[in-house]
Amino acid sequence: MTGRTWQEALLSPASIALVGVSDDEGKTSGRPLRFLRAAGYGGRVYAINPTRETVQGERALASLSDVPEVPDHVFILTSAQRALDALEECETLGVPVATILASGFAEVGQAGEANAARLQMLVSRGKLRVMGPSSIGLANLHNGTTLTANAAFAETDLPKGGLFVASHSGSLIGALMSRGKRKGLGFAGLVSVGGEADLTIGDVCSAALDDPAVTGFLLFLEHMRHADKLRAFAEEAARRGKPVAVFKLGRSDEAAELAQSHTGSLAGADEVADVFLRACGIARVASFEGLLEVTPLLARVPAAQKPRRGRVGIITTTGGGAAMAVDHLAGLGVEIVAPSAETRARLAENGIEAGHNRILDLTLAGTRYDVMRGAIEVLRESPEFDMVLVCVGSSARFNPDLAVQPALDLIDAPGHPFAVFIVPDAPDATRRLAGASVPVFEDPETCADAVAAALQRRVPALPPLSPASAATTGRFLDEAEAYARIPSVPVADWVALDVGAPVSDLPFGYPVVAKVLDPAIPHKSDAGGVIVGIDSRKALAKAVGQIRTNVQEALPGHFVSRVLVQRMQKAIGEVLIGIRRDPQVGPIVVLAAGGVFTEIYRDSVMRLAPVDLDIAHEMIGSLKLSQILAGARGRPLGDLDALAEALVAVSRLAEQKDIVEAEINPLLVLPKGDGVVAVDALIRVSGR
Amino acid sequence: MTGRTWQEALLSPASIALVGVSDDEGKTSGRPLRFLRAAGYGGRVYAINPTRETVQGERALASLSDVPEVPDHVFILTSAQRALDALEECETLGVPVATILASGFAEVGQAGEANAARLQMLVSRGKLRVMGPSSIGLANLHNGTTLTANAAFAETDLPKGGLFVASHSGSLIGALMSRGKRKGLGFAGLVSVGGEADLTIGDVCSAALDDPAVTGFLLFLEHMRHADKLRAFAEEAARRGKPVAVFKLGRSDEAAELAQSHTGSLAGADEVADVFLRACGIARVASFEGLLEVTPLLARVPAAQKPRRGRVGIITTTGGGAAMAVDHLAGLGVEIVAPSAETRARLAENGIEAGHNRILDLTLAGTRYDVMRGAIEVLRESPEFDMVLVCVGSSARFNPDLAVQPALDLIDAPGHPFAVFIVPDAPDATRRLAGASVPVFEDPETCADAVAAALQRRVPALPPLSPASAATTGRFLDEAEAYARIPSVPVADWVALDVGAPVSDLPFGYPVVAKVLDPAIPHKSDAGGVIVGIDSRKALAKAVGQIRTNVQEALPGHFVSRVLVQRMQKAIGEVLIGIRRDPQVGPIVVLAAGGVFTEIYRDSVMRLAPVDLDIAHEMIGSLKLSQILAGARGRPLGDLDALAEALVAVSRLAEQKDIVEAEINPLLVLPKGDGVVAVDALIRVSGR
Repeated sequence: MTGRTWQEALLSPASIALVGVSDDEGKTSGRPLRFLRAAGYGGRVYAINPTRETVQGERALASLSDVPEVPDHVFILTSAQRALDALEECETLGVPVATILASGFAEVGQAGEANAARLQMLVSRGKLRVMGPSSIGLANLHNGTTLTANAAFAETDLPKGGLFVASHSGSLIGALMSRGKRKGLGFAGLVSVGGEADLTIGDVCSAALDDPAVTGFLLFLEHMRHADKLRAFAEEAARRGKPVAVFKLGRSDEAAELAQSHTGSLAGADEVADVFLRACGIARVASFEGLLEVTPLLARVPAAQKPRRGRVGIITTTGGGAAMAVDHLAGLGVEIVAPSAETRARLAENGIEAGHNRILDLTLAGTRYDVMRGAIEVLRESPEFDMVLVCVGSSARFNPDLAVQPALDLIDAPGHPFAVFIVPDAPDATRRLAGASVPVFEDPETCADAVAAALQRRVPALPPLSPASAATTGRFLDEAEAYARIPSVPVADWVALDVGAPVSDLPFGYPVVAKVLDPAIPHKSDAGGVIVGIDSRKALAKAVGQIRTNVQEALPGHFVSRVLVQRMQKAIGEVLIGIRRDPQVGPIVVLAAGGVFTEIYRDSVMRLAPVDLDIAHEMIGSLKLSQILAGARGRPLGDLDALAEALVAVSRLAEQKDIVEAEINPLLVLPKGDGVVAVDALIRVSGR
Repeated sequence: MTGRTWQEALLSPASIALVGVSDDEGKTSGRPLRFLRAAGYGGRVYAINPTRETVQGERALASLSDVPEVPDHVFILTSAQRALDALEECETLGVPVATILASGFAEVGQAGEANAARLQMLVSRGKLRVMGPSSIGLANLHNGTTLTANAAFAETDLPKGGLFVASHSGSLIGALMSRGKRKGLGFAGLVSVGGEADLTIGDVCSAALDDPAVTGFLLFLEHMRHADKLRAFAEEAARRGKPVAVFKLGRSDEAAELAQSHTGSLAGADEVADVFLRACGIARVASFEGLLEVTPLLARVPAAQKPRRGRVGIITTTGGGAAMAVDHLAGLGVEIVAPSAETRARLAENGIEAGHNRILDLTLAGTRYDVMRGAIEVLRESPEFDMVLVCVGSSARFNPDLAVQPALDLIDAPGHPFAVFIVPDAPDATRRLAGASVPVFEDPETCADAVAAALQRRVPALPPLSPASAATTGRFLDEAEAYARIPSVPVADWVALDVGAPVSDLPFGYPVVAKVLDPAIPHKSDAGGVIVGIDSRKALAKAVGQIRTNVQEALPGHFVSRVLVQRMQKAIGEVLIGIRRDPQVGPIVVLAAGGVFTEIYRDSVMRLAPVDLDIAHEMIGSLKLSQILAGARGRPLGDLDALAEALVAVSRLAEQKDIVEAEINPLLVLPKGDGVVAVDALIRVSGR
């Protein structure tokens, strides 16, 4: 044993063994040795290559057992088969952590099945921690640990700083580094986590949390596997005040498919990922450049306690440039707020004529240091804003002392956070600003993406961790049993009738609906088991007979013994509420517009379950249908309080471990004061 | 007179006078002289400044009349008031064209009213053509005419090439130039058109069409004023094979408001602009960088004859990088097509293992010249694609000879167009590719934006120019008169009844609806003038009386004399179809989902009117509600052919000059074979 934890050994190894390192420094398997030497790695490096005396001018050892110490971190550069042998040797020797470059495990399907099983067996013993397979390695720029085969690390003058990158994609750690370097950003570490057979992206980021050099995290996600680890990391990162930004693939089905073939894991529905990341207090950006540019801003914009759109004040030396940023910001829901009368007065005291525009356009004032400085100072102190965005035109390229220098001078002064959008190409200004940790954006789309993500980021609000139920099968309850499991949600009046017995008077009025009542027939309409609009006892008797006939035709040999008869009533609107257990992020509660429009207009809102009344009201506010429920077009106002209570009640079904999924569809929303009533419910419980 | 046309004088003046030029070369009004000298402008320049003997070391003249010739182009750098004096002097002297830097005209509202009127008077005489007000000038890089006050033209080594930029925003011509320079793009000209008191952006672009140096147009639009001129330019540009790309502000209401205060013109609804630009055969991009990056691609991707999503084949050396591009492309509706079995076989003949992925990932093959070249060659010849996108990872930065050189070598070879997306920061590779006119993209979002815009660009399909009716007022026809104006659209059975006369038997069955029939009451429901679900003659008599009472309550003193009684019937779906005359782009036909859902889900499609059956079917296909009309969820199929015919018929109302607007709402779509029926119509005609 080396006495080092796997965390230390992973990111700050005192000694490294490279298994299968090539003599050819241009080859993938030759690069790690070259890069470690180029970066001046100060620890001990052992080159393992049984076929050669020397490798890249260094003495080669025949096997791991020839290494004169137990190395902290072994990077295995061989094919999958040999990698497994090397891993087992690592385990025997007591190596804390090993990284596997090879693919050929679970991600290649059947062909890799045997390898995957052998790897899983080793990992399950828990003695050796493994990063990969398909990991291109990692780099800790502060101690020269460029332990990677990624060609991008041929870079001379690696950009050191506070950002920590972790990625499912190995190639992108290089792209992020070179792009960050151009922008003047610096990195503490960059890690390709690969297929996560053992160490997950959450584990790796958690391992970096103690490093004081790390100021923020950038994650490139291809899927949401191991969400529990990500969640644990995100909560701890929030406690430590280290912001986390995510770019996640898979907004389109096509990309989800690619991610799947790439990593062998199922990409979860993107909306679920969105809900989960938001609940974790993670800022999700939509653009690749945004992932780099958002983090300095996150360090300055505190996460919101309540949902907010964000209120931005704009200062600009170019009307057209600011208008582009405003256009995109508004499209993302951010409020562009005009300076108040008080703010305009204080600007005037500083000799700045604000006019009555929504933005503070300094074009006419001319681009001058004192004007720009005064404008930033006044807006940063004005209560109508959450942050200030400064748009700088050509002067950023030719006269940075005029409009860029004030930002440099004021960044650590008190007041709202501010950021700079540079409208022309002005690489020197961008780098100067980034170097001084001023949030700076190079195009209007990325600027809006990052500003919205930062302003709309919430403090983590995670329900207690409900173990994701593995059960996706189970048995359905019948409608009457289902109602019994959700006693706090009102149900439209109903009675159960035995088929065959004479139909007696109902305890409620007509019209009614008759529905087959049978746990074996969860989809009642498909079996002809629902008849609506029954307006008399005679019609009801006929309907019951018709249902029996219909079901027997649809399901030959199945005998219908009971029907549920329910009062029909008019409503302001119909919604669906339900819970399901996502295999990756756990229980989810859904609110959606009911009926045929749900599908074509995809009007639905999700949150991690359970939710409280505040979040329930937030969900209702996000549903487009709520415009109707809230009394649009002269309609009466719906009982949104009752809807929120029902949503909370249904979301709490997630706490009942035997419930696999549950749905009330539709739930009728009645006029304010009259509540809501369920007119159908379907619950599946685990077991047979 | 100079004998030059205004077009020549604008973009290639042989002589220039600068009115109000400053001695201080750093001042806005000093820059044009400095820039002209720095660029080596070969024509004659006259500095006009009555207060000085010399300006920037050159002899100053006291007034325009002291100039020893009639200058081709006069750039007026004074305040608005003096600019008007100078303009009138230009007119007297026979100057062909003058540009005004000053603001202080229509765009400042009342304060500029007198100036605007005087300018308008001069322009209306048609002797002097005027660019501006609020024009920061223009640059023709091929002849050194840097006739601009934009500070960005302090640039040494201006990037010459084939792109022609025209912009409503003056500051952005500088930002586009510096950004283009960084990317290795070159410009023929850049023009700030300002407030368009005379010359519009369409006029200016038309003036550049004859310049053989101009290969494509980039337009930055803040609004859609003078759409007729833009349309004429776009049609001629298409005939000449010179592509046009547009970035337009105003997707958000906030930006529309900014553009409005900026230029004094009303920004049209953004959807209308979208429809218009598409019909003009213009590629509209959503990102600022996309405006620069799309044009080289437009030069290679021919405009589509029919609507298409576009089919893209992907080659990559980085899985993660390609997945980002795929994600965004798919989000924009582009199809990512897998190589066919034949294509895979031909790749195998070239030693390239394609696998069965949707993209051709060369990561395992290693980044090699021959592999990349072979892959591009095979995919360019494969019929399943419209174009090929090549994603290049770190090798673009460190080994451009491997994966970038094949693109350089193949760009002029036959086959589908292709483009390159560079995943890391690799400025040298980007510039080499751009310099060889290879379409190249620097980030996945811009790449997807530009590729989708290029593939989905259509050949111009403009209805014959219908003069936009200025009339926004007029009188309404009553419902019966409205039906008479659209004889080819079937109407649900109806009769008109005199109020007061006894109700006789109807020529059709119950249930029916009764509606007040009165041209003075266009919004019948608001006045209590509609009663639905009338199921007998007795109920009808009662309803007629009720309507009379309701209307008299709502409109005291108004006497109801007639009602229209109409048969009610069930439909598969309800739509709205209508036309209106947009003050900027002319007549528009709209198809929207009917009822309350129209508003909350904004499910509507527009085209320039009139449309033919093909476009009508395309519109129907774009409406989300069509999923229901086309038989979703077990519903019967609606009569979409009849709907298309009705849409064509209504769109042709645009040809009737007296019709200000017309709307059928709702139009019931019946099962296939049963057609459609209008159950309400509202038409407004000009006049009283």
